[in-house]
Amino acid sequence: MNYREESLKKHGEWKGKIEVVARVPVDSRENLSLAYTPGVAEPCIAISKEVEKSFDLTRRWNTVPVITDGTAVLGLGDIGPEAGMPVMEGKCALFKAFGEVDAYPLCIKSKDTEEIIKTIKLLAGSFGGINLEDISAPRCFEIETRLKEELDIPVFHDDQHGTAIVTAAALINALKLVGKKMEEIKVVINGAGAAGIAIAKFLLAFGVKNVIACSSKGIIVEGDTKFNAAQQELAKITNREMLSGKLEVAMKGADVFVGVSVANCVTKEMVKSMADKAIMFCCANPVPEILPEEALEAGAYIVGTGSSQYANQINNVLVFPGLFRGALDVRANTVNYEMMMAASRGIASCVSDEELSTGYILPYAYDKRAHESVAKAVAEAAIKTGVSKLYK
Amino acid sequence: MNYREESLKKHGEWKGKIEVVARVPVDSRENLSLAYTPGVAEPCIAISKEVEKSFDLTRRWNTVPVITDGTAVLGLGDIGPEAGMPVMEGKCALFKAFGEVDAYPLCIKSKDTEEIIKTIKLLAGSFGGINLEDISAPRCFEIETRLKEELDIPVFHDDQHGTAIVTAAALINALKLVGKKMEEIKVVINGAGAAGIAIAKFLLAFGVKNVIACSSKGIIVEGDTKFNAAQQELAKITNREMLSGKLEVAMKGADVFVGVSVANCVTKEMVKSMADKAIMFCCANPVPEILPEEALEAGAYIVGTGSSQYANQINNVLVFPGLFRGALDVRANTVNYEMMMAASRGIASCVSDEELSTGYILPYAYDKRAHESVAKAVAEAAIKTGVSKLYK
Repeated sequence: MNYREESLKKHGEWKGKIEVVARVPVDSRENLSLAYTPGVAEPCIAISKEVEKSFDLTRRWNTVPVITDGTAVLGLGDIGPEAGMPVMEGKCALFKAFGEVDAYPLCIKSKDTEEIIKTIKLLAGSFGGINLEDISAPRCFEIETRLKEELDIPVFHDDQHGTAIVTAAALINALKLVGKKMEEIKVVINGAGAAGIAIAKFLLAFGVKNVIACSSKGIIVEGDTKFNAAQQELAKITNREMLSGKLEVAMKGADVFVGVSVANCVTKEMVKSMADKAIMFCCANPVPEILPEEALEAGAYIVGTGSSQYANQINNVLVFPGLFRGALDVRANTVNYEMMMAASRGIASCVSDEELSTGYILPYAYDKRAHESVAKAVAEAAIKTGVSKLYK
Repeated sequence: MNYREESLKKHGEWKGKIEVVARVPVDSRENLSLAYTPGVAEPCIAISKEVEKSFDLTRRWNTVPVITDGTAVLGLGDIGPEAGMPVMEGKCALFKAFGEVDAYPLCIKSKDTEEIIKTIKLLAGSFGGINLEDISAPRCFEIETRLKEELDIPVFHDDQHGTAIVTAAALINALKLVGKKMEEIKVVINGAGAAGIAIAKFLLAFGVKNVIACSSKGIIVEGDTKFNAAQQELAKITNREMLSGKLEVAMKGADVFVGVSVANCVTKEMVKSMADKAIMFCCANPVPEILPEEALEAGAYIVGTGSSQYANQINNVLVFPGLFRGALDVRANTVNYEMMMAASRGIASCVSDEELSTGYILPYAYDKRAHESVAKAVAEAAIKTGVSKLYK
């Protein structure tokens, strides 16, 4: 099937992938008086006396907007706020199907960092958490950091952390198969935008010592001013061997390759230069950095991609529904690294030792057990780290 | 039943009066590929080429946010954005039940007019129309006027125009019973906030020549600077006899009294001073300007209130679901006076000559025929006045 052509047709028929429905009856004088005036005055008064009650008396406890400015939608780039909405609606449908979260799509017609931060802050009282989506780097870093500082609800930029969490989950299971440890592997990350930088930092948190990040300009090394501010910052904690040069230099002897870059930038020769039992996550969409069959031919041991057309899809659909489910359930006031790491472990744990194989390192995106596992792990980590407002 | 106490309890059980649900399946690889990646890229590209396609390929065509800043909620005043949300959620439930509109509650944590306008403008690409709610005067006038000018989707401040539309509908039918014409009646409006001013202007559009508006400071008369800017503006087109003084002065000989003010401010003596077959709409909530039984005892011929506890409830629930249904169906780029007047006539027409009586001048709020009638009338008026983007 030509998915893109068929999808366009389907979208025209669906006329929207989500809708808002009433959970209460309003079909009689009595019901109206309870759900609306005059009765509704009483919950309003209760919340005005104690704002936190908005989590008990409205849907706030379960709601998350999926917010974009349309600047980094899929691999399409800056296509405008309205044009990002089919993706946002899709995410909202997934939020409900896999996390029972009421997610609502919002696009903001601005590329100004301060304006976007301001807009989201002004709306935050409507929501239990905030999911940022498809906002281009480096603005996405500032926007997420500031909102995390200034709001007391979970704020999560899926393109950064969703990708990092599912990549780490895939790596946890892949390492079991090749018998290597986080501490001893060399990881090359190609692509140093929002996702690449987040993956690099997240793997360091998981104990990886040797991470080398590359952009289209080559290996990111401390002191090289041709890289942007976020990349130069990253250079201080990665590539301690101070390698420089092209991607192929970095790939030599690497145990793991993570691609969040562009189609066909990795050659068979590069794969051959990697360490024994090489793990490759080639997540460029829709065409990966190297086709799985070519990577395997060249000696890679485990290959994953971003696509459902191949084995081992590394898809952040496995992350966000469960992550927000868990965070909302315990009314977390943030999303911290411990919760994110718990999410990775929660996903990885859904593949049993018996099931685990080079062709099956992650659960399928539509596997409900995986989402439940993430939710449970995240909720526990939130409580453990003292960020739950319900369980202290 | 004590509605307010029972309502608080119910809100605690409901934990939200609306929710967001998926309209598409995402439970298999194939379905995910159509509703989400990789298929979703195609509708995104289509919208980026032609923004108007967002009405065809996403839920935008049917979505309206119910937006408040929490400054004028019910009769409770400025209770804060989060505290307004039970009302907003209630409206969203009514929007769906009576108009099949997907409405979503949003509160904005700001009282700054420019900030509120800016926020809504930045979000407008997510929606097919904008419903403003419970924003205090005079800021609500500027906010609505500017948004109407600057956006090409319908913008509607329900507290102003919803109230005006249903009041006019009630008046149309009441006048049939008393055998008077719009052109010959004297109407006194007590309360000159958002609703009162909107009602005054709207009745003038319906042909009423003699409208006298009063605030708590007395009769609003041209040149008296103790009234605020919006009221002084209104004074130029009302009270052409240049009456001044207290409400009781205005009431003498009036054919119609419309109260959108406070409890118990009208006495039996004032009612007795009105013209023969006086019509009184006493809409202060929860306690009317004068109790219906007292008004009738004092000689009023038809009495309506804002409450469902008495006959003739004058409730803007009759307006907004159908009005937006009609506007969205023809993709109107605004809500104009013709559409609003059509809504009034649409409501009024739902009470047949046989049904019409002093105790039944309006359909019930939960009467689906009324909402359908409003939708049809509004859609026709939008097409007729050339503001439909679908039917030109």
